[in-house]
Amino acid sequence: MSGVVVQNIQRASLDVIDALARCGVATVHEAQGRTGLLASYMRPIYAGARIAGSAVTISAPPGDNWMVHVAIEQLKESDILLLAPTSPCEDGYFGDLLATSAQARGCRGLVIDAGVRDVRDLTEMKFPVWSKAVFAQGTVKNTIGSVNVPVVCAGAAVNPGDVIIADDDGVCVVPRLNAETVLAAAEAREAMEGEKRSQLAAGVLGLDMYKMRERLEKEGVKYV
Amino acid sequence: MSGVVVQNIQRASLDVIDALARCGVATVHEAQGRTGLLASYMRPIYAGARIAGSAVTISAPPGDNWMVHVAIEQLKESDILLLAPTSPCEDGYFGDLLATSAQARGCRGLVIDAGVRDVRDLTEMKFPVWSKAVFAQGTVKNTIGSVNVPVVCAGAAVNPGDVIIADDDGVCVVPRLNAETVLAAAEAREAMEGEKRSQLAAGVLGLDMYKMRERLEKEGVKYV
Amino acid sequence: MSGVVVQNIQRASLDVIDALARCGVATVHEAQGRTGLLASYMRPIYAGARIAGSAVTISAPPGDNWMVHVAIEQLKESDILLLAPTSPCEDGYFGDLLATSAQARGCRGLVIDAGVRDVRDLTEMKFPVWSKAVFAQGTVKNTIGSVNVPVVCAGAAVNPGDVIIADDDGVCVVPRLNAETVLAAAEAREAMEGEKRSQLAAGVLGLDMYKMRERLEKEGVKYV
Amino acid sequence: MSGVVVQNIQRASLDVIDALARCGVATVHEAQGRTGLLASYMRPIYAGARIAGSAVTISAPPGDNWMVHVAIEQLKESDILLLAPTSPCEDGYFGDLLATSAQARGCRGLVIDAGVRDVRDLTEMKFPVWSKAVFAQGTVKNTIGSVNVPVVCAGAAVNPGDVIIADDDGVCVVPRLNAETVLAAAEAREAMEGEKRSQLAAGVLGLDMYKMRERLEKEGVKYV
Amino acid sequence: MSGVVVQNIQRASLDVIDALARCGVATVHEAQGRTGLLASYMRPIYAGARIAGSAVTISAPPGDNWMVHVAIEQLKESDILLLAPTSPCEDGYFGDLLATSAQARGCRGLVIDAGVRDVRDLTEMKFPVWSKAVFAQGTVKNTIGSVNVPVVCAGAAVNPGDVIIADDDGVCVVPRLNAETVLAAAEAREAMEGEKRSQLAAGVLGLDMYKMRERLEKEGVKYV
Amino acid sequence: MSGVVVQNIQRASLDVIDALARCGVATVHEAQGRTGLLASYMRPIYAGARIAGSAVTISAPPGDNWMVHVAIEQLKESDILLLAPTSPCEDGYFGDLLATSAQARGCRGLVIDAGVRDVRDLTEMKFPVWSKAVFAQGTVKNTIGSVNVPVVCAGAAVNPGDVIIADDDGVCVVPRLNAETVLAAAEAREAMEGEKRSQLAAGVLGLDMYKMRERLEKEGVKYV
Repeated sequence: MSGVVVQNIQRASLDVIDALARCGVATVHEAQGRTGLLASYMRPIYAGARIAGSAVTISAPPGDNWMVHVAIEQLKESDILLLAPTSPCEDGYFGDLLATSAQARGCRGLVIDAGVRDVRDLTEMKFPVWSKAVFAQGTVKNTIGSVNVPVVCAGAAVNPGDVIIADDDGVCVVPRLNAETVLAAAEAREAMEGEKRSQLAAGVLGLDMYKMRERLEKEGVKYV
Repeated sequence: MSGVVVQNIQRASLDVIDALARCGVATVHEAQGRTGLLASYMRPIYAGARIAGSAVTISAPPGDNWMVHVAIEQLKESDILLLAPTSPCEDGYFGDLLATSAQARGCRGLVIDAGVRDVRDLTEMKFPVWSKAVFAQGTVKNTIGSVNVPVVCAGAAVNPGDVIIADDDGVCVVPRLNAETVLAAAEAREAMEGEKRSQLAAGVLGLDMYKMRERLEKEGVKYV
Repeated sequence: MSGVVVQNIQRASLDVIDALARCGVATVHEAQGRTGLLASYMRPIYAGARIAGSAVTISAPPGDNWMVHVAIEQLKESDILLLAPTSPCEDGYFGDLLATSAQARGCRGLVIDAGVRDVRDLTEMKFPVWSKAVFAQGTVKNTIGSVNVPVVCAGAAVNPGDVIIADDDGVCVVPRLNAETVLAAAEAREAMEGEKRSQLAAGVLGLDMYKMRERLEKEGVKYV
Repeated sequence: MSGVVVQNIQRASLDVIDALARCGVATVHEAQGRTGLLASYMRPIYAGARIAGSAVTISAPPGDNWMVHVAIEQLKESDILLLAPTSPCEDGYFGDLLATSAQARGCRGLVIDAGVRDVRDLTEMKFPVWSKAVFAQGTVKNTIGSVNVPVVCAGAAVNPGDVIIADDDGVCVVPRLNAETVLAAAEAREAMEGEKRSQLAAGVLGLDMYKMRERLEKEGVKYV
Repeated sequence: MSGVVVQNIQRASLDVIDALARCGVATVHEAQGRTGLLASYMRPIYAGARIAGSAVTISAPPGDNWMVHVAIEQLKESDILLLAPTSPCEDGYFGDLLATSAQARGCRGLVIDAGVRDVRDLTEMKFPVWSKAVFAQGTVKNTIGSVNVPVVCAGAAVNPGDVIIADDDGVCVVPRLNAETVLAAAEAREAMEGEKRSQLAAGVLGLDMYKMRERLEKEGVKYV
Repeated sequence: MSGVVVQNIQRASLDVIDALARCGVATVHEAQGRTGLLASYMRPIYAGARIAGSAVTISAPPGDNWMVHVAIEQLKESDILLLAPTSPCEDGYFGDLLATSAQARGCRGLVIDAGVRDVRDLTEMKFPVWSKAVFAQGTVKNTIGSVNVPVVCAGAAVNPGDVIIADDDGVCVVPRLNAETVLAAAEAREAMEGEKRSQLAAGVLGLDMYKMRERLEKEGVKYV
């Protein structure tokens, strides 16, 4: 089941990917029916990054980053590395050397359900990472895993080539084949939000804007 | 038990509230006998904010933010929204649209024993939030709760109208009727701290300043 | 077992200590055989600090910071305070007054497997702290502990006088007698990393640089 | 704020208390509008106990069980000790000696948002405990707290004299003045459940028994 | 994305399912290449149960068990209910009434990445449950979800009709189409284990039985 | 630093070890000054076991149980295996085959700051285990560690040959050279406890037995 490297994965179009990044995690997640979020413990190592890219997935044993090297060869411009350990682990699989190598191949960032280290260097390099932990603990290169196989990462099922969106709110995965549809829904949602924001800023209440008063009364809410 | 919205709550005087904000969480907490702190997992979404205000409380079901809309109507200038879910939840009940609405009514910030999202926008808006999680997970509007009822939020009992103080150290609640007394104690404490700080900066040891040596000896401490 | 203050501990040479700080936690940890890290929950209160110093250790009861005052007297220029509670605790043992006192004696920072408070002041003072929690909860001064005895802090065994290195990646302890050897290994490692970084930045793959292809094949990795 | 022992608290009638015990935690919690539960981490040290009693509350510092001795004097026949530490702690405040003393005064059990020890002895004595942890860690008797003051215990607000119900599902608190009303609702609920159980056992579906099909259709559920 | 109930799912043969149950979780997990385990926090409510069955999956909102009623109608003899909330939740979605209904339809047990209640009754009924929490917290029936759609439950991807195996070691999922192959591998593994167990019981060392000494030496292990 | 197997460790006398087991964890921990406890998350896989033995320590990489096989050869009659992973891990390093092998060499049990599996078999074999998790997740045999070196296990420093005591209250370590002294103190403590227990059972209050009333008054406790 391990020991497989899939070389030719399909990717969504870069235009769609970049447009999803602009929408951001919260909007994209809403636009695809409130699905696709990774767990809330996945936090960025620095604030302000907002990226999207195609997932090159890594299934790696706990405490062993051998497959990261294998995965880096599979990266294409604009991809995102996404690592799921085969059992819970917070070791620092990834640091500035691997980031240098990944960045040289056009990689936009790392999503890892484990630890990362050299975060000061990564911040200076502007290589964004969303991780479960920051931990200097080193890893070995003794046991194989797989690259570009389906994984569950921080509670979300991810297939290679799926679109990953990540920002200060966390990380969201959009299945590759849904990317265009989700983008359309996300952009529609954004358009509507502008109008709503103006009204709310002007003091209109959500209760009125969303016409909630009657339904609240029916549910039995009492003002005292 | 749910489905109640209390409309006319009493508040402490704004002068007292603002003065408590200046004292900060650690001092206020000490001044009221080391009570009133919310759990340490309540963290600010950005560093540097220090606010105080009157609590408009929300008791909401897990994953349902309907009552936030109801609560916003109850906000008065300088209030703070405080949400306690009826069971543990880290969903993102609150984002930039609700913040826009709350800010339009003079709300100073949010304290939520659950999740928040759109944190990049909230940071730009200077709308501070103390939360258990940052999580883009959306919520529904299907089940009612209550507004301005007593709640337990992150381990602290809060009544509507109580004074909430929040800064980088966390969040503290001061019962409304104690606000003036606690302020007096906090300011007295601050006055004393200035003097102590000078002495300590000059190299005087706490052991001497607090006259601890004799008591340590009596307790049996041995220097070897 | 408690109630002991050891006054004359030995320290590593300051040159070695400062050089270890420059290497940083991840490199030092690797250089001593991937040992010595404190748990990943030990996080800095602000980003960017990188320090090293000799450990003045504190074994303190939960919720009681009396021994911190005792420890401060034992500080020498360039030391680091390191506190381990005798049972799990996240109270705020330490704030700006104690930091003022410690800084006046040349202390470089605090490592505490518990809570810290006044973090805004500590940040302004440039007094770095690595802690398990930020928590305003106050402590008492009623029960004695010990200073400069061996402790286990966040999962790592620390002896007084051991070298503590701390940065954005976490905290590492180097036994005093190994400090020079570990430094040599760390610097050798750093030297090598520069060369590797250049190659990786130029697009050379880790697979080739580390000659991994043959071994991967032997382990049965299949490219599909 | 600490250092108070309230001696004459009021209690609900023992008939009501005992009847609430028979209903059990899940039913009582439903009967009072899904409120009053302590956090799910409060687990019994052995399976099968189901008790109710009036709360004698203890507010104690972390790692200090002095107030437990004070509280035991306040116990009356059929009471339950309930301890909330002033900050998170899992030390073993309570063991077989204290249980012997409490049992001698008619105490029915302990609810503690901290640790307990000697659990083998307590199990043999049939002295039930619901706790956050089992931990042999000892405590001191150096710092005072309070007895029979309002506390927040494991996320629930408890007043002295409130009725505590505890069984394998956890712990629930019923405000003393509501005890009779809640009991009536709980018993009504139980009566209804017998009928429902028979129907469900006979193969009637909840979908039909609760007439859910139409509402599901209206909400848009699609059978495919 | 929600609001779907798939009615005709395919199942593995009951012979294969029952044989997988006899092998147990640890063996089955090994037999399919160390994959398929749910997170270790999924614990049985009582010791000693060992079951297997076809998964009828439920995707439910936090704190809302409406879909459980819908799912029960889809149960066939020997199935297992498996519930994944759409965001983390530990509410008690399931108690003795639902268990009565499920058992009446031949359901063998429940796997739920959330809470369960009435555990004393469930234990008496011999209705086994593996859950994240025991929590009496009630739920509502206001928001729809889906039944028999793919879910991620406690970190494992599960499709409707997959085989679930659960015992004291936890829970494992075997994709339906792999069930026979995995069973063959599991039984082969079991056969071998009997022989190994006899040798080990007789005092033969694993070092010798697995011929590890030479490889250990090559890796540099030193006996001192 | 890894790759060492120390073959001839010293052990405490078996009489002392067995007498410490009879005292139990809580008493022994008190008798050595409230030190030596492992973290409270170390729980027994079944209730009622109470053992003591000499520690054969294992330092193992995450997810790799190769060194367990090496350690078993080092076991002598009455020893206890104690495993500390080099970074946090909850994989199931140990199951019924290893237990069979260890038991054949006289091993009394396992203490593991990680996971264990086959717990039903281990329970039937009466092979007690104290672990951080029960988890079927398998491990590999690719990376070496060490046997009989000092480790930190669940927060406690353990040297090979130290006495481990484990029962339903958790696990305690007694340094080998202190074993006799601690036993004397533990037995003295036990003797005293019998007398105290009789008095408390007869209704004497701890307040009187320990003469606490005056000191409470001095500390300012007020009865109201």
